Amino acid sequence: MVKPLMVNAFNPANAERLDAPLRALLERRQRVLGPSYKLFYEEPVHLVRAEGVHMYDAEGNRYLDVYNNVPSVSHCHPRVVAAIAKQAATLNTHTRYLHELILDYAEKLVATFPAELSNVMFTCTGSETSDLALRVARNFTGGTGIIVTETAYHGITSAVSEISPSLGDHVPLGSHVRTVPAPDAKRMGDADVGKTFAANVEAAIADLARHGVRTAALIVDTIFSSDGVYADPAGFLAPAVDAIHRAGGVFIADEVQPGFGRTGDSMWGFQRHGVLPDLVILGKPMGNGIPIAGLVAKPEVLQDFALKARYFNTFGGNPVSCAAALAVLEVIEQEQLMANAKKVGRYMKDGLEALAQQFPSIGAVRGAGFFIGADLVSDPANATPDPALATRLVNGLRKRRILIGASGPEGHVLKIRPPLPFSIEHADFFLSAMEDTLRDEQTGI
Amino acid sequence: MVKPLMVNAFNPANAERLDAPLRALLERRQRVLGPSYKLFYEEPVHLVRAEGVHMYDAEGNRYLDVYNNVPSVSHCHPRVVAAIAKQAATLNTHTRYLHELILDYAEKLVATFPAELSNVMFTCTGSETSDLALRVARNFTGGTGIIVTETAYHGITSAVSEISPSLGDHVPLGSHVRTVPAPDAKRMGDADVGKTFAANVEAAIADLARHGVRTAALIVDTIFSSDGVYADPAGFLAPAVDAIHRAGGVFIADEVQPGFGRTGDSMWGFQRHGVLPDLVILGKPMGNGIPIAGLVAKPEVLQDFALKARYFNTFGGNPVSCAAALAVLEVIEQEQLMANAKKVGRYMKDGLEALAQQFPSIGAVRGAGFFIGADLVSDPANATPDPALATRLVNGLRKRRILIGASGPEGHVLKIRPPLPFSIEHADFFLSAMEDTLRDEQTGI
Repeated sequence: MVKPLMVNAFNPANAERLDAPLRALLERRQRVLGPSYKLFYEEPVHLVRAEGVHMYDAEGNRYLDVYNNVPSVSHCHPRVVAAIAKQAATLNTHTRYLHELILDYAEKLVATFPAELSNVMFTCTGSETSDLALRVARNFTGGTGIIVTETAYHGITSAVSEISPSLGDHVPLGSHVRTVPAPDAKRMGDADVGKTFAANVEAAIADLARHGVRTAALIVDTIFSSDGVYADPAGFLAPAVDAIHRAGGVFIADEVQPGFGRTGDSMWGFQRHGVLPDLVILGKPMGNGIPIAGLVAKPEVLQDFALKARYFNTFGGNPVSCAAALAVLEVIEQEQLMANAKKVGRYMKDGLEALAQQFPSIGAVRGAGFFIGADLVSDPANATPDPALATRLVNGLRKRRILIGASGPEGHVLKIRPPLPFSIEHADFFLSAMEDTLRDEQTGI
Repeated sequence: MVKPLMVNAFNPANAERLDAPLRALLERRQRVLGPSYKLFYEEPVHLVRAEGVHMYDAEGNRYLDVYNNVPSVSHCHPRVVAAIAKQAATLNTHTRYLHELILDYAEKLVATFPAELSNVMFTCTGSETSDLALRVARNFTGGTGIIVTETAYHGITSAVSEISPSLGDHVPLGSHVRTVPAPDAKRMGDADVGKTFAANVEAAIADLARHGVRTAALIVDTIFSSDGVYADPAGFLAPAVDAIHRAGGVFIADEVQPGFGRTGDSMWGFQRHGVLPDLVILGKPMGNGIPIAGLVAKPEVLQDFALKARYFNTFGGNPVSCAAALAVLEVIEQEQLMANAKKVGRYMKDGLEALAQQFPSIGAVRGAGFFIGADLVSDPANATPDPALATRLVNGLRKRRILIGASGPEGHVLKIRPPLPFSIEHADFFLSAMEDTLRDEQTGI
């Protein structure tokens, strides 16, 4: 039984508790968008504008954003907005004409990677990129088998939903897919995480072979976001990467969540582990909200597919998306956002660890930079997951005008992932609201 | 043997014939983007700006655009640009918060469809939408079999590349896929096109059943762009739609090419045929270049999937893409672009037919509104496809500063698909250049 992906979803059965204007919006949504469009929170937030690390609702209330990793360099960053507006007024076209901007951006982007990863192909979403990565990996290796973690999420196309166990029972994993437990030191009995993770990958490779399936790839989100956030010890990925290479497969780093400096230590999550991927999936924060994503690749891994597969993505690498993405890279550099993620992220993690001393319902704090997970537990001795508490905290913080979310296999992991310019003052505001919310919870308010 | 998708691709072996600045750009592209990025024309065009129905190269030369259907309401339309700039500066976020713009747009969009098609889900690309349509169709019907035309193209994810025979031999069709010949009256011996097309669909359904595969869907581009453009007689799709419904499958209209008024007669290509699809795929021109696409659906077909599949598209329906798309719909209405496509499209088709009288190498002219295909043939009596002539014409027109392309199963069909505000004067300029190019060809210049 797979738990819900969204623990803090609005329950449409509670619509009658809401004010008339919100109810009217909900009815319009339901009528025209249908039932797949879920909302956050017991009382959904009706947003009208955003700026910096804040979002504003229709009544003018200001919310501190501790959740959104797409508007990574801050909501409506003026430099990104100006780049979009200028390019949209100049030229927006596809890649079968020559245009310099895609080259300027591509060169600046691959320069942030190890020299071996020197090619990039552009798509529009992380899902499209994961799907492309599977096609490239299978073409290169001749295998079809894919190894992912137990609660992995890599996207929503037919092919990548089959390798995304977090989507639940409705989407069966492909018969060519094997899962390995998340690199959770506690669950591994504090054994060597890297060794254990690699042993599980080797067992998956062997099991695929036993079923006549040649392994094509190990693909992991290098911060393990949907698994519950696993960052330490840095380096634990190395033995598993060796294992997949020994088996003739490729290692695909999914950097949609940790990428673009979020983990503070390095531009890319895989770099924390000292490993070299064959393919890297980029997405969400790449254009600060404008759809752009991409696959960074070793040329020798990409070559045969690129020559033969006639892959053309109409909007992929269009000048407007590239202008936004180029501005994002420039802002990360010039505002030193990676250093900020490291400094303020460390401060937030320390603050959360201090709260954990005070409130035993915080069972563990994990993460790096601005990607922090905090386990909520009902029985500290046994670390029993408490998704109900997670839901109450998420909604309690929403009342205090803080936007946050939860994930993990049991939905009990608070996910702390603010825009990168989040300051010490913002962190203090958040930590103080966390403390108040946890205290209310303790005293049963 | 499947013919190349791009007959007029630049051959990198000819790079040394180009000027140094172009060569430098080509080298940068090759180095950083790898070999999948093809360019149009013997001499690639280096574009720097565009406006209305014109594009401009780095040397200031102006090209008439008779090819690009993405910037459908015209390049850099000021109203669309303003909508993008304003919304990018205000708010760009995902659909798990309430926001009115997505509802305003979704309601205005579905209002252009028959009442039964009242739901829409947003994605970022036509490929993502085709992929989603397959997932929904399979969930609804319990079948997996898919029927497409012989040279169909529906996108580039793993799943939809398997139903896109135009991608060639490198991408094997799925064992659950059957193809039917394009609705080509000539090839069908001038038999009843609708009846013959439906009989082929029925045979495909029977063959799938014989292999133990239940048919999920018939999916067609309702203008049959990559098959070579087949528009007439209007209504020919109806018997095939009846056939797929009788077999328990759904009919999916791919409107990425003909949609948003391009065919002149109606907003959607399927309407020319008087049929009602179960699912409709939208893409390319939807946001005039900003990535946005969507699946319009009968609620009862979508319902179960939408409730269970946990489909969430991070950038899908974001406010900036919706602002662009809303502006596009408004411009189509207010500038009466559909009526223009009908009027000027008819004028262009008449002009091409007149040229065909004069130049026997134009074997046939087909299409509706601003979607016209012209067959180029070497042996008029037998209508032998002449892709080499198509390539020469495309490059000849490029020298006359007209951008055009070719497609079809043999690459011999000129594809005429200008931005919708294309005027009679633009049509005259194009027709006159066509005549000159054909005359040069005749006289061996």
